[in-house]
Amino acid sequence: MELIHPTLLLDEDKCKANIRMMSEKARRHHIGLKPHVKTHQSAMIGEWYRGFGIQAVTVSSMAMAQYFASAGWEDITLAFPVNVRAIGEINRLAAKIRLHLFVNSEETAGFLAENLEHSVGFYTEIDTGYHRTGVAAEQEDVLRNILKAARKSNLLTFQGLYTHAGHTYQARGPEEVQPVHTTTLDILSRFKENLGKEFGSFKICVGDTPACSMMEDFTGIDEISPGNFVFFDLMQTQIGSCSFDQVAVCMACPVVEKHPERNELIVHGGAVHFSKDFVEIKGKRVFGQVVALQDKTWNGAVEGGYVKTVSQEHGILSVPSGFIDKVNIGDMVGILPVHSCLTADLMRQYVSSSGEVISCMGKS
Amino acid sequence: MELIHPTLLLDEDKCKANIRMMSEKARRHHIGLKPHVKTHQSAMIGEWYRGFGIQAVTVSSMAMAQYFASAGWEDITLAFPVNVRAIGEINRLAAKIRLHLFVNSEETAGFLAENLEHSVGFYTEIDTGYHRTGVAAEQEDVLRNILKAARKSNLLTFQGLYTHAGHTYQARGPEEVQPVHTTTLDILSRFKENLGKEFGSFKICVGDTPACSMMEDFTGIDEISPGNFVFFDLMQTQIGSCSFDQVAVCMACPVVEKHPERNELIVHGGAVHFSKDFVEIKGKRVFGQVVALQDKTWNGAVEGGYVKTVSQEHGILSVPSGFIDKVNIGDMVGILPVHSCLTADLMRQYVSSSGEVISCMGKS
Repeated sequence: MELIHPTLLLDEDKCKANIRMMSEKARRHHIGLKPHVKTHQSAMIGEWYRGFGIQAVTVSSMAMAQYFASAGWEDITLAFPVNVRAIGEINRLAAKIRLHLFVNSEETAGFLAENLEHSVGFYTEIDTGYHRTGVAAEQEDVLRNILKAARKSNLLTFQGLYTHAGHTYQARGPEEVQPVHTTTLDILSRFKENLGKEFGSFKICVGDTPACSMMEDFTGIDEISPGNFVFFDLMQTQIGSCSFDQVAVCMACPVVEKHPERNELIVHGGAVHFSKDFVEIKGKRVFGQVVALQDKTWNGAVEGGYVKTVSQEHGILSVPSGFIDKVNIGDMVGILPVHSCLTADLMRQYVSSSGEVISCMGKS
Repeated sequence: MELIHPTLLLDEDKCKANIRMMSEKARRHHIGLKPHVKTHQSAMIGEWYRGFGIQAVTVSSMAMAQYFASAGWEDITLAFPVNVRAIGEINRLAAKIRLHLFVNSEETAGFLAENLEHSVGFYTEIDTGYHRTGVAAEQEDVLRNILKAARKSNLLTFQGLYTHAGHTYQARGPEEVQPVHTTTLDILSRFKENLGKEFGSFKICVGDTPACSMMEDFTGIDEISPGNFVFFDLMQTQIGSCSFDQVAVCMACPVVEKHPERNELIVHGGAVHFSKDFVEIKGKRVFGQVVALQDKTWNGAVEGGYVKTVSQEHGILSVPSGFIDKVNIGDMVGILPVHSCLTADLMRQYVSSSGEVISCMGKS
């Protein structure tokens, strides 16, 4: 298979090594692993999970839940606060599989208690400092009210507390991830202790790739649901979750212009391929890391080569003059994406090192 | 049609008024209009263009060129530096329609001269200060070499010079757009004067929405190819290209959590819906503007209501307390996107005010 247009390459060996690493870690710590599949959105990669004994997945949208249910997954956690407008879809899906929802408010619990037609499990998110979704650490009364409202229906079963400590993405290195992780564990343990008597035993689940990759203390945690680890990306190399060599996806982009006078290459590869996420490295916004590409495999970063900016279809690469001299118009260059989840969402398919196309769910 | 999930609404009347405005402006100035369709990527909206007498379009990728050719467009400019790896597709498309390419290097001109099988026109991009693609203003020798290399084939016909002065996006108001526009006109006129004798008559084409919307001096310009004007967006309101009322697309996003204690709402609507473009307003990064929504129409900005941040599926809205009090979990809120092109690329379909679904090209 000839590469012509921007193509998302997937190194199956690296990807499977990442899955093995996380599944072995979960086994070692006696915790469940329900990987978040929003990163790859692919039934075929889901099959690779099964090869490591994984039996449940986490998704971020109803469309993704439906797609993975069609692919034979029978235990799916929709890790997004319930959209009550989708009650019809929730009921239809709950009729088929073990569906778990996120219920973060008394209103939502009350709505579900009245409108569910089939049994679902639910988690409530605890905000341990990320300040996106969930019940704040000091709002134990809010959590109690949710759990009480849910009790009005025997179709709504409390599974446990969930935290995505997304603020680990601001951390650099295990020493900065550690305090975030410890605070998360402390808050969740306190809730478990305070609520256990009244609401029975329940699970504690955490979901961020940095903590799940770097930490070794999972005291009190029953399940993890990281997603990004399956591919990793440039962002994760900066946080310290992985090495460059563990990043399992790479964009191949055709060079369409050379500007040696400003040490820049123009490639077909822009915001509609990479998204517009960037990571700041030494005070510069970096939209991707240039790597040495050989057909459909890559190895090693090109020192000083990075994506300086992207517009809709264009990428501007800043590269060392030694590199630019060896590149011709029409060559493909490799670029490690900053955020593999968004790049995969945009590209919607992968090409393996052997040229096989690995498809994703379609846009609904 | 009931809105359940994040939905991109399209106000057909506003959209057609935008098309009318730009086509009347082109007619008034006796210049051609070849709108850039990367903004909407929809054959149906292309048909609206035809209603205003538009007969040629501009695209940003080969896949888009193929899609619009299938939709009956016979004059298509692929406004992206030629990807020489796609020569097979170029030849197949050039056999069917009047295809115009961007040839910005002598290597590319030489390659095409040797490998074309059917007639194509070409433009060369001139970099008038944006520093993305094209021949720099001071590189007249480079331009001459391109034109000379192209002469080696009678299948490769020079159409003219093209400039996307994307640095107008950094401008605010006509007084800041004016000098960028004037510089662009000056550089292009000089090239035309210097090269006309040797290379015959050719066209001058410019393509940025801010200048095409705000400027009235089109001296020396033969064609314009703006794209974004068809929808406009929050970015364009900040640049000064349009008013709020002219923005023709709006995201409807379901509210899934309320956090009155921090004046925030959580909606389903994140980077996979909006992309991650932001505009800085009064020192704050803004990822979208909250507007008052009534079913599938909207009017007026909610003062102080904006998208503060987006993650993959989540949007965090900062809203005034008066607004939050009136909103319930399960309500839809309206959000004007920062960059309608990227939002449309992600959403890939529109719902009109009457509930009709307007489709886009699929992901190739």
